[in-house]
Amino acid sequence: MMEIEFYFDIASTYSYLASTQIDALGERVGVPVRWRPFLLGGVIKATGNRTPIEVPAKARYMLMDLKDWADLYGIAINFPAKFPPNALPVQRVLTAVAMQSEDRVRPLAQALFKAYWVDRQDISDLGVLAHLIDAAGFPSVELLARAQDQEVKDRLRQTTDEAVQRGAFGAPTFFVGKRMFWGNDRLPLLERYLEANKTR
Amino acid sequence: MMEIEFYFDIASTYSYLASTQIDALGERVGVPVRWRPFLLGGVIKATGNRTPIEVPAKARYMLMDLKDWADLYGIAINFPAKFPPNALPVQRVLTAVAMQSEDRVRPLAQALFKAYWVDRQDISDLGVLAHLIDAAGFPSVELLARAQDQEVKDRLRQTTDEAVQRGAFGAPTFFVGKRMFWGNDRLPLLERYLEANKTR
Repeated sequence: MMEIEFYFDIASTYSYLASTQIDALGERVGVPVRWRPFLLGGVIKATGNRTPIEVPAKARYMLMDLKDWADLYGIAINFPAKFPPNALPVQRVLTAVAMQSEDRVRPLAQALFKAYWVDRQDISDLGVLAHLIDAAGFPSVELLARAQDQEVKDRLRQTTDEAVQRGAFGAPTFFVGKRMFWGNDRLPLLERYLEANKTR
Repeated sequence: MMEIEFYFDIASTYSYLASTQIDALGERVGVPVRWRPFLLGGVIKATGNRTPIEVPAKARYMLMDLKDWADLYGIAINFPAKFPPNALPVQRVLTAVAMQSEDRVRPLAQALFKAYWVDRQDISDLGVLAHLIDAAGFPSVELLARAQDQEVKDRLRQTTDEAVQRGAFGAPTFFVGKRMFWGNDRLPLLERYLEANKTR
């Protein structure tokens, strides 16, 4: 069965934007969405890519661009006080959840995206992160302990490496089988592809 | 009066895509489009940005992405045999035209975009370029001579520097006064901005 794999990192600006749209897109075309936490920093490093903020003019433009997208989508966005954050703990927590029940990734990720990109919470701070996990109805003590397990660390690395091997070089990245789409701004192209290729 | 400034380089993939859409966009919102040839290489150098093809995974994705956009727009695209080309001669020729009559830039640029991005002509070859200029109904001998004038060389450099000073870091770049939009993929945001802000 066809599915949309949504590779995301809570620390990724355009992953946040896409996270607010991808489920509605999946519903419109009748294709399920699989939320896959990976580590953008690992992808950037593996591919020799750079983040937009490494080019000052691009970083300045990004702030305006984000507001345009937020306005278009009718969502809130408040640029984080601490950026980029250390996303390793939060992506490991999401990986721990994925290993137990992949369907549970979505609600926790959505709560964490909002905490970071709307409420400007510092998700790299483990105390703050614990509070956010609890507030989202997940067991913070258990998850933060699990996030330290070698098995979870390895899984996050595997997921990231696998995305790179499939062609990813940034976030968000979407896959439909072997077909890849990169970026929040490619959601219309992803939807068009699914409309044309979904099994009827 | 409000206008859209369209900064483009014939050698820029996404400038070609945008060039096929920008005039229709301007007509829909009732805002004139000013075609402004600049030098993408100069912008990249001045801002510390890099072209997509410097990241191998991104370059691979770009080939697929281009086909998606061409399909969406209903236009042809055939990746050039020689890429990137030396765009200096062609951008100087367009600058020479702009200095004589800015309205004449559009038809020559459209002919050159098509020659490079559809017919795979080598626009860095001066003989090929002369033929293309003639075929588009422009005087190739005069324009290629003008392109060597210091005044024309300086003007292209000024236009490029000015775009960088205004915030540009890539191509295509659109300005509406101080407001900047970067990329073919931001055309919907540009149109939305114009709809909301044009004088009624």
